Amino acid sequence: MNEPFAPTERKIAVIGGGTGSFTLLSALKNHTSQIAALVNMADDGGSTGVLRDELGALPPGDVRQCLVALSESPKVRDLFNYRFEEGSLKGHAFGNLFLTALEKMTGDFVAGVELASEVLGVRGVVAPITLTNVTLVMTRDDGSEVRGEFEIANQDFHGERPQFRLEPVAEPNPMALRAIETADMVVIAPGNLYGSLAPALIVPGIGEALQRSKAVKVYVCNLMTKPGQTDNFEVNDFADEIERLAGGRFLDAVLYNTKQPSDDLLEKYAQANEKIVGFDKDKLREAHYAAVGTNLVSGMAWQNASSSDPIASHRTLIRHDSLATANALIRLYDYFNEKRN
Amino acid sequence: MNEPFAPTERKIAVIGGGTGSFTLLSALKNHTSQIAALVNMADDGGSTGVLRDELGALPPGDVRQCLVALSESPKVRDLFNYRFEEGSLKGHAFGNLFLTALEKMTGDFVAGVELASEVLGVRGVVAPITLTNVTLVMTRDDGSEVRGEFEIANQDFHGERPQFRLEPVAEPNPMALRAIETADMVVIAPGNLYGSLAPALIVPGIGEALQRSKAVKVYVCNLMTKPGQTDNFEVNDFADEIERLAGGRFLDAVLYNTKQPSDDLLEKYAQANEKIVGFDKDKLREAHYAAVGTNLVSGMAWQNASSSDPIASHRTLIRHDSLATANALIRLYDYFNEKRN
Repeated sequence: MNEPFAPTERKIAVIGGGTGSFTLLSALKNHTSQIAALVNMADDGGSTGVLRDELGALPPGDVRQCLVALSESPKVRDLFNYRFEEGSLKGHAFGNLFLTALEKMTGDFVAGVELASEVLGVRGVVAPITLTNVTLVMTRDDGSEVRGEFEIANQDFHGERPQFRLEPVAEPNPMALRAIETADMVVIAPGNLYGSLAPALIVPGIGEALQRSKAVKVYVCNLMTKPGQTDNFEVNDFADEIERLAGGRFLDAVLYNTKQPSDDLLEKYAQANEKIVGFDKDKLREAHYAAVGTNLVSGMAWQNASSSDPIASHRTLIRHDSLATANALIRLYDYFNEKRN
Repeated sequence: MNEPFAPTERKIAVIGGGTGSFTLLSALKNHTSQIAALVNMADDGGSTGVLRDELGALPPGDVRQCLVALSESPKVRDLFNYRFEEGSLKGHAFGNLFLTALEKMTGDFVAGVELASEVLGVRGVVAPITLTNVTLVMTRDDGSEVRGEFEIANQDFHGERPQFRLEPVAEPNPMALRAIETADMVVIAPGNLYGSLAPALIVPGIGEALQRSKAVKVYVCNLMTKPGQTDNFEVNDFADEIERLAGGRFLDAVLYNTKQPSDDLLEKYAQANEKIVGFDKDKLREAHYAAVGTNLVSGMAWQNASSSDPIASHRTLIRHDSLATANALIRLYDYFNEKRN
């Protein structure tokens, strides 16, 4: 393979699944070939939800996004993200059908991910965080339960800190545990806190592995709040929830954005009750982790939308700039690494 | 690539589409890497029919079978033939979805076939015989019309020699014309005479190319008759119809089977009104082509069914033995070649 620079050998594990992981992985892969995407497996919406319901498949959607982010083959990448627009296939992403066909054919989801990795020319590995076919269950303060990631994503439980579990009890994927334990840096990707990160962090064994791992462990905080769920959250609230979900402290650093988007843009978001995530320097100074603020949306991130990233153009305009965020993470890692040696 | 023997450089084009082409290509690819599968594009049944109806796609099914036959990658081959068994995807072969997704995404069926060839590690090329989105239309002796390959396959027109056309008028694929014109041998594969071979042979320009081509041109005759369509056909009747459909004489040779299957097996077929294709040595001696009879079902072909060939186990038990047929074709070619030089 021709490389403009020799790849360094930093081993990086990224925990998450959806757009946040996609953004980080797309840029981190330029810094190292030793990269492992650990993917939450509780998604049950859209094309993925239909495949789970109709075929009893494991959820392919987030795995597909991570594979595409790490792919070196533009043609196959676009194909994997292609969504059928008509007929009985409408809404299905081709890559989801690929992963599901292989899983149903071989009875082995991981074999499917491996073949997809080969076909896509993936740099690094994508590992489901669990291979148990799980449902995310939330218990609210009043004892009521909500089942399924898609349902939970649409709930309003503002002000509560609900409890989460997976049903049935999830077995951690040994490959995911090994990645956390042997990485030089573990990154918790930005993403839907309760819908996307919770089902990864609450898998039994993952929290313990995070606490045990000697890696530099960094959480990349979300840019925007989610209405009804994280409305008044500041950076330290997000970080606290990450550690509560993982069952204990483990973070070495939290990377957050300090750049204020334009008033126009904030106004648009305000109409959907989404606010930029604020930060309280005093609280962050007292935190047990290093809080590192910088401009993570520089370079007009919203112009980055490409056909390989179908979500970009639809969901949000204020997004992490993948290059700036990856650069900040690498600088942060190098700083910790120097300090430790 | 490791080869037990150095590949010869015979250039072979195979015209057809379904199981017959699959069988020939699977074995011919061991004799040469210069192989072109020219595929009829009128299929409108099953998974292919749904994709045509719902998405306006070109028919992927026969192209998929030829790609799989020429593939060197067993894992991807099985995946391409995998059929979903439940839900809204039920009945769809994964490879069909692959080809259709690429066609819809790029607007270019050929680009899809090329990418699929890459992913499958295809030896040789697979070329649609036309890229016009056509329907096969049959006109019976009484002037009535039947539209669509699937419908035509289920008609009873015993004793007639119906007229066929494609709607709209098909443009021949230049790649297919080039293959016929530059091949050393052109093989008309066995297969459904009116449903599978007619829509290939009647594409404007194909018959002329066959007549012009300096290749050794061989028709591999069917083993069994089709009830209601070719009931009393003998080898020379099949050959005559092939040339009638192509609009003129072009055959140098006809390869036909002389081995009589067991009475038990013939009895089974008789219950479905299918008979072994007979031959009249006197008529064949008078023909303008060389008629070459040999055992083409040796080796108990019906034990050859594999997961890469899903049709084998379902449709028929008396089948061409792919190795024996390919060997016979190569011997036949060498004979003609020697005679000409």
